[in-house]
Amino acid sequence: MVKDLTLGQTAQFLKTNDNYLILTHSSPDGDTVGSGFALKYILEKIGKKATVRNAEVIPEKFLRFIEAEKDEEFEIETIVSVDLADTKLLTDLEEAYGDKIVLSIDHHPTNKGYSKNRLLWPTAAAATEIICALSEELEVKLDKKIANAIYLGAATDTGCFKFSNTTENTHLVAAKTILAGADHVAINREFFETKSKQRLALENKVIGNMEYYFDGRVAFATISYDDFVSSGCNDTDIDGISSIPRTVEGVQIGITMREKEPSVFKFSVRSFEPYDASRICAALGGGGHKAAAGCKISRENGEIAKKEMLEAVRKEITL
Amino acid sequence: MVKDLTLGQTAQFLKTNDNYLILTHSSPDGDTVGSGFALKYILEKIGKKATVRNAEVIPEKFLRFIEAEKDEEFEIETIVSVDLADTKLLTDLEEAYGDKIVLSIDHHPTNKGYSKNRLLWPTAAAATEIICALSEELEVKLDKKIANAIYLGAATDTGCFKFSNTTENTHLVAAKTILAGADHVAINREFFETKSKQRLALENKVIGNMEYYFDGRVAFATISYDDFVSSGCNDTDIDGISSIPRTVEGVQIGITMREKEPSVFKFSVRSFEPYDASRICAALGGGGHKAAAGCKISRENGEIAKKEMLEAVRKEITL
Repeated sequence: MVKDLTLGQTAQFLKTNDNYLILTHSSPDGDTVGSGFALKYILEKIGKKATVRNAEVIPEKFLRFIEAEKDEEFEIETIVSVDLADTKLLTDLEEAYGDKIVLSIDHHPTNKGYSKNRLLWPTAAAATEIICALSEELEVKLDKKIANAIYLGAATDTGCFKFSNTTENTHLVAAKTILAGADHVAINREFFETKSKQRLALENKVIGNMEYYFDGRVAFATISYDDFVSSGCNDTDIDGISSIPRTVEGVQIGITMREKEPSVFKFSVRSFEPYDASRICAALGGGGHKAAAGCKISRENGEIAKKEMLEAVRKEITL
Repeated sequence: MVKDLTLGQTAQFLKTNDNYLILTHSSPDGDTVGSGFALKYILEKIGKKATVRNAEVIPEKFLRFIEAEKDEEFEIETIVSVDLADTKLLTDLEEAYGDKIVLSIDHHPTNKGYSKNRLLWPTAAAATEIICALSEELEVKLDKKIANAIYLGAATDTGCFKFSNTTENTHLVAAKTILAGADHVAINREFFETKSKQRLALENKVIGNMEYYFDGRVAFATISYDDFVSSGCNDTDIDGISSIPRTVEGVQIGITMREKEPSVFKFSVRSFEPYDASRICAALGGGGHKAAAGCKISRENGEIAKKEMLEAVRKEITL
């Protein structure tokens, strides 16, 4: 049974222990990377050793704003996870560490309680909001390095303070990081104002092929395997395309179906209140947040996969 | 000669005078509308009469978040402008009021100093940031109505806290308004997450036709009169299209040329450091901010207009 800690108890825990391994989730995003490294930098400031690990290579675009120099070797004593709802999301690292996590710092309401202790703030838009609060509790002054990592998580998990998860605290955290020297302009430019020509061309194709269902309340975009391959896009380019269908006026549920490998379909679902994207995706074995969720299924072809998704949507709409 | 006031002096001025006419700029945007109405609500809270005027009709999308009920009649005594760099931007109201403005509250570094007194904060991303500070100075607690107006300006003038003008204060202001009950989620949804199908189709056309100059450092998008008319878009739909060219990877200056009426070409220029969009537009009789500026010229055809703009760009690039 997981023990839920207060902020003060968590700070005490971090002060008491040492030699940290910080685990982040696969398909690393700005929040898990930002949380992991911000926590590492903070722990180092209070004299601890810490290293961040991810089952995958951290994309270059994050490393522009994170100093991920090689850590000196040390014996791991304390295993902490950040922004990790489920140990499944450790993928290749699950077997080694999944049952050894003593502290989970997370903002997912769906956190599985896999760790011995947990600091869960389900109203935080980003896990880095929690890390920011921890730095204050530990009396570690934000420097530029920590500030960049925290801002990165806060900005990327909220679509630059645009999504409905944004709270006054998210903005306060952003203000604190900017005051501490975060490169917010460069981060915003990289993540919210730059698209490759390939990405733009794929976007154009997606928009051109968008289909509407349920009286225009649902928009469905399809990216076939061939379209993706021929676009010259990489996985990074595709970030954000899944937010397009929901932006169409009148659309309340936006769905992007991408054939990741032949016959493997990855869905991204974005919804507005009262609809629940995570409930839709749960019906197909996935999960996530209320406004943004995902799932991955293997089916013979796209028509079958699409039909199943639309059936899950129909259930949500007629609930 | 304009007299520059401190925040305290401005608050004192507002307490001393009464019966305010608040002037906002033509082609009303979220910041001028937000500043005007926030100031009006604040003045009413300290027992004053105030009314907001604009030479044009305020678009419906703003009025969803602003209570613009009809004011009772009163004799105007004090004329104040908000977010107004130049009295020319009063258009039809300039003749009547252009030389009678006793206080200008503005954030444009290019403010012409047309008023008797001025509260100019050139580092404020939005004029509503200044209004927020004034409310504190006047000890008026933000309510939902004021908070919505302030948030509207701060969010729309920064592309939802994304543009380089965003500072820690912009985020602090956002945090205060959200705490006071601003409908930030609905405002973000309306202004940053909703596009009409017409707008999407026009966007697709613009992206499809984009041209690149100066080794890909400049992207040039063209919206012809016919394209615009046949798209079924209105002027509101087009907001934001002008930010697309600069989003292409490697592009430092993004230009959108729209034929507003036959042979009248409106340019929107967006630039990244070190380039100065306002300098480019000044060469064609326009102006604005360093990162975003505009101008309007009448030329025989689009090729001629485009050539002149590209010449102004060449000068900026080879400066």
